[in-house]
Amino acid sequence: MTRLITVAAAQLGPIQKAEGRDSVVARMVRLVERAHQRGANVVVFPELAFTTFFPRWYVEDLDQADNWYEESLPSAATQPLFDAIKRYGITCYLGYAEIAHEPDETGQVRKRRFNTSVVIAPSGEIILKYRKIHLPGHKEFSSIRKVQHLEKRYFEVGNLGFPVTRAPVGQVDGVNMGMLICNDRRWPESWRELGLQQVELVMLGYNTPAVNQENRGFEANHLRNFHSQLSIQAGCYQNATFGVGVAKAGNEDGFELMGHSIIVNPQGEIMAMATSWDDELVVADCNLAMCELGRTTIFNFAQHRRLEAYTHITSQTGSTPPAVWMPSTQEETEAHSS
Amino acid sequence: MTRLITVAAAQLGPIQKAEGRDSVVARMVRLVERAHQRGANVVVFPELAFTTFFPRWYVEDLDQADNWYEESLPSAATQPLFDAIKRYGITCYLGYAEIAHEPDETGQVRKRRFNTSVVIAPSGEIILKYRKIHLPGHKEFSSIRKVQHLEKRYFEVGNLGFPVTRAPVGQVDGVNMGMLICNDRRWPESWRELGLQQVELVMLGYNTPAVNQENRGFEANHLRNFHSQLSIQAGCYQNATFGVGVAKAGNEDGFELMGHSIIVNPQGEIMAMATSWDDELVVADCNLAMCELGRTTIFNFAQHRRLEAYTHITSQTGSTPPAVWMPSTQEETEAHSS
Repeated sequence: MTRLITVAAAQLGPIQKAEGRDSVVARMVRLVERAHQRGANVVVFPELAFTTFFPRWYVEDLDQADNWYEESLPSAATQPLFDAIKRYGITCYLGYAEIAHEPDETGQVRKRRFNTSVVIAPSGEIILKYRKIHLPGHKEFSSIRKVQHLEKRYFEVGNLGFPVTRAPVGQVDGVNMGMLICNDRRWPESWRELGLQQVELVMLGYNTPAVNQENRGFEANHLRNFHSQLSIQAGCYQNATFGVGVAKAGNEDGFELMGHSIIVNPQGEIMAMATSWDDELVVADCNLAMCELGRTTIFNFAQHRRLEAYTHITSQTGSTPPAVWMPSTQEETEAHSS
Repeated sequence: MTRLITVAAAQLGPIQKAEGRDSVVARMVRLVERAHQRGANVVVFPELAFTTFFPRWYVEDLDQADNWYEESLPSAATQPLFDAIKRYGITCYLGYAEIAHEPDETGQVRKRRFNTSVVIAPSGEIILKYRKIHLPGHKEFSSIRKVQHLEKRYFEVGNLGFPVTRAPVGQVDGVNMGMLICNDRRWPESWRELGLQQVELVMLGYNTPAVNQENRGFEANHLRNFHSQLSIQAGCYQNATFGVGVAKAGNEDGFELMGHSIIVNPQGEIMAMATSWDDELVVADCNLAMCELGRTTIFNFAQHRRLEAYTHITSQTGSTPPAVWMPSTQEETEAHSS
């Protein structure tokens, strides 16, 4: 049987700080409807899809910022999205800010905040949850930055690993689905964790500023999108998986976010790309049989990976300088090269 | 002081099976001379630079194939290259087939074969050695392949890790240099091992067939070069390093190898590219200060890497299927979504 699924990247245009969840959810429902009209079995939304990219706004006391988060999913405000998913029998990836009341490392139940995504089955059931691991930015207000990027303030590091699940999608009995969020896509470790679980479809949303405030004159602005696509294309190729990278795009209260959401095949080719900075749907047919070529030949991990050579990767977090080469004495050099 | 070095990718055209080392070494010396004329401080040659890509040829008894290997470096035949390096004060990366008489895992000294590369200092001294870790292909003659790819027959897996050394290059006191060989470039683990040692210049040679014999209708031929460049560009960007990927190119005894050697900056941009299938030199000025942006911001490993989430990477060689999701009963689903 052909393992063909139709995948939609549902890019969202900007969400202003003042826009309410009801309005955003209505936009998302329209995208689900359009995805249904175009025959999609899967719809992928951005990171933090219900709100503006609020980590650009500093708050002293996080408890004053609860309105950016979801304490339950679905809630009254988000229920219409779940209804649409169910109505059209679509599988959905959705990013949101999560408040969870659960034990921390010490076992103490407390209010915890994560940058989270879920896979929602056509039944409306949440079948997989991921919490963002590579949080970019900083924790405290930075007086030297023109724009804050306070993800390390607003969120704890994800504690669910990089889970993959196999579940039905459209007419296909089982599709191996995994998730990333935004900055995770730049880290090959994220992709490899999913690849080692035979992922076939990586869904990821992002909110990425169109200008790197820290570029120091070394990074042309047009490279921002190149870097995003390069990372997704390399991740897909090197792990023989389809990938869907979906932006929240455009100008939010004066701050521009990148667009150019893409659907990528296991060869690393871009199959479809959004070209607006607005709500936009792009769709591609994904033949999951394409994942087998890489997985069974050039990237047959069992045959080719060499764990004994990867010891730095999991034994040290930061980088360390290499040994400095010391030249031989003049006499030794002469002797060697004569 | 400006940390500027001038880097040359010295692509070699085809080397036919019948071509002798003296002829190949003379071609390499001419490239070193041209590199000197163009002000290069570093010259990077391909993998297995002294011979045809012999792993396409089956031999029953490896001892009959010793002529493809170097037992000492330099030898009488390769000395002119070392002389040229010394004459012009150039740092050189060189790939070759190595025979080493050294202990194996059991402590027994025996004749061992590796796909090796070295960094040669302007003094002619070998200052760093690497042995290829990701050997592609197969060990036994394959009757279903039109072309053999017997690297797993001709070579043992490299046993020197991914070393990085800091040594003077041109007028720069210390440059952090590392090496890869051919198929290593497709594996993000290789690049990360070097990145964790603060590499600033990754030198790598390759011999890559222009057609994937195993493509099964899923990989267009033009993607071969895309995959090579995608992997190098992603590796450079994600580890904030310069990279030089150098081909042996063109038609060797009826078998076509890819060209399009490149020099890539830490933004992942291609700075220079060969466009022939012949001996060809491309040169770029590399400002090593460019490595600092990535290393101290978005790819500040100490701040952002999360070892606890990378456990699959070094705990399992091959991939394993994910858990299969089991739907809740109808009643539970109704309750959940109501």
